[in-house]
Amino acid sequence: MDDTPTDAEVACFEAGIKFGSLYHQFAGTPVSPESASSLETAMEAAIENQPHCRDVTVEILTDRLASALEDATAEYTELTGRFLEVEITVEYEGREVLTRMELDDGYPLMSVVSVRDLDE
Amino acid sequence: MDDTPTDAEVACFEAGIKFGSLYHQFAGTPVSPESASSLETAMEAAIENQPHCRDVTVEILTDRLASALEDATAEYTELTGRFLEVEITVEYEGREVLTRMELDDGYPLMSVVSVRDLDE
Amino acid sequence: MDDTPTDAEVACFEAGIKFGSLYHQFAGTPVSPESASSLETAMEAAIENQPHCRDVTVEILTDRLASALEDATAEYTELTGRFLEVEITVEYEGREVLTRMELDDGYPLMSVVSVRDLDE
Amino acid sequence: MDDTPTDAEVACFEAGIKFGSLYHQFAGTPVSPESASSLETAMEAAIENQPHCRDVTVEILTDRLASALEDATAEYTELTGRFLEVEITVEYEGREVLTRMELDDGYPLMSVVSVRDLDE
Repeated sequence: MDDTPTDAEVACFEAGIKFGSLYHQFAGTPVSPESASSLETAMEAAIENQPHCRDVTVEILTDRLASALEDATAEYTELTGRFLEVEITVEYEGREVLTRMELDDGYPLMSVVSVRDLDE
Repeated sequence: MDDTPTDAEVACFEAGIKFGSLYHQFAGTPVSPESASSLETAMEAAIENQPHCRDVTVEILTDRLASALEDATAEYTELTGRFLEVEITVEYEGREVLTRMELDDGYPLMSVVSVRDLDE
Repeated sequence: MDDTPTDAEVACFEAGIKFGSLYHQFAGTPVSPESASSLETAMEAAIENQPHCRDVTVEILTDRLASALEDATAEYTELTGRFLEVEITVEYEGREVLTRMELDDGYPLMSVVSVRDLDE
Repeated sequence: MDDTPTDAEVACFEAGIKFGSLYHQFAGTPVSPESASSLETAMEAAIENQPHCRDVTVEILTDRLASALEDATAEYTELTGRFLEVEITVEYEGREVLTRMELDDGYPLMSVVSVRDLDE
């Protein structure tokens, strides 16, 4: 039995690393509707530095942010998954993996959307 | 062409998430040879909470830590990959993925060691 | 006009640093009633490494944690201020500052409890 | 003996919180000379959300960053204090506190530059 990972499996591992990094690096950051845009840009640029990372798209859901702040005494909150939609594309040895984080029944869910062989 | 991920690919994605989470949650933590052991225990227990995570082993390299502090004026430093060896085992839909972080030429390198089908 | 900070003011600045560090280092950590105790211990030991920090006491409110998980599909959550009570004592040049974080109307509030001159 | 903190002491505590938050929220972020600017902007905007925070200026030392990467195999590194210069101004109850982080003998040092009574 050969248990060496395939290129596609390593590509998925790499994509997972990016997601865990992005989430746990930036969760907890003070964020308001006004500062959301600069944080989106910085999160994308930071994670795109990582190896094999081709593209990162971060959307902070400012509508949800504004709703959360409506009844609050503060004018900012902490970034968590319920304010985030993220797509990350990784390319490793000719395999392209598209991954996504979005809300599922109120919980942020990270998943692999597709794994493609770029040579096919 | 079917680009739906296999169970083994999703298992590798899940393992990557755990690694990125562990690293970016705890990198930067003030650490000394005396406090290293409590941090190892907390890192293991924290990440083992995550879905599909069967086992996490964290070793903080206290010898390296002590060397780094020898010529320093401070008695602690910040946790980074060069003081860490980590193994994480994930199980997802009958697939077991073993992953590891260790130093490679002075740089921390995360890799998939093996992907096994538990039904075989 | 002399705007040089007093020893007591520097002591308060140092105490603030410890609070900001503790909160933003560990917020977002996956935590469950079972893993809470190891995280408390690691947070205390990590921050006590910092200069002038004499004592750190962290309590993770496991009752609140359990309530938050009652209706959830997950068995863990992320550490935030609403699950935390913290006391930090800093000593700097003969001044002792006691600071505290506790819930105030549902929000975590950090405050200076007392500033003492140890020579008096 | 009255050990209630003065307004100036609370202002210094608040400034310390901002520094600890900024450092431990963003230390460990993947950064390159190309992505440094977006990270500076996001760090400033994030911390300026916090209460009583009037101004934050972050400079990532891209020269030092480039030097650190010269002999490296990677094209990015992790943000740490040795790549950072930061100034934070806090205003609380008519007291203005200016604080700074800069390198001192190779180590990042956070300090209170001045405490002013704005009514004088």
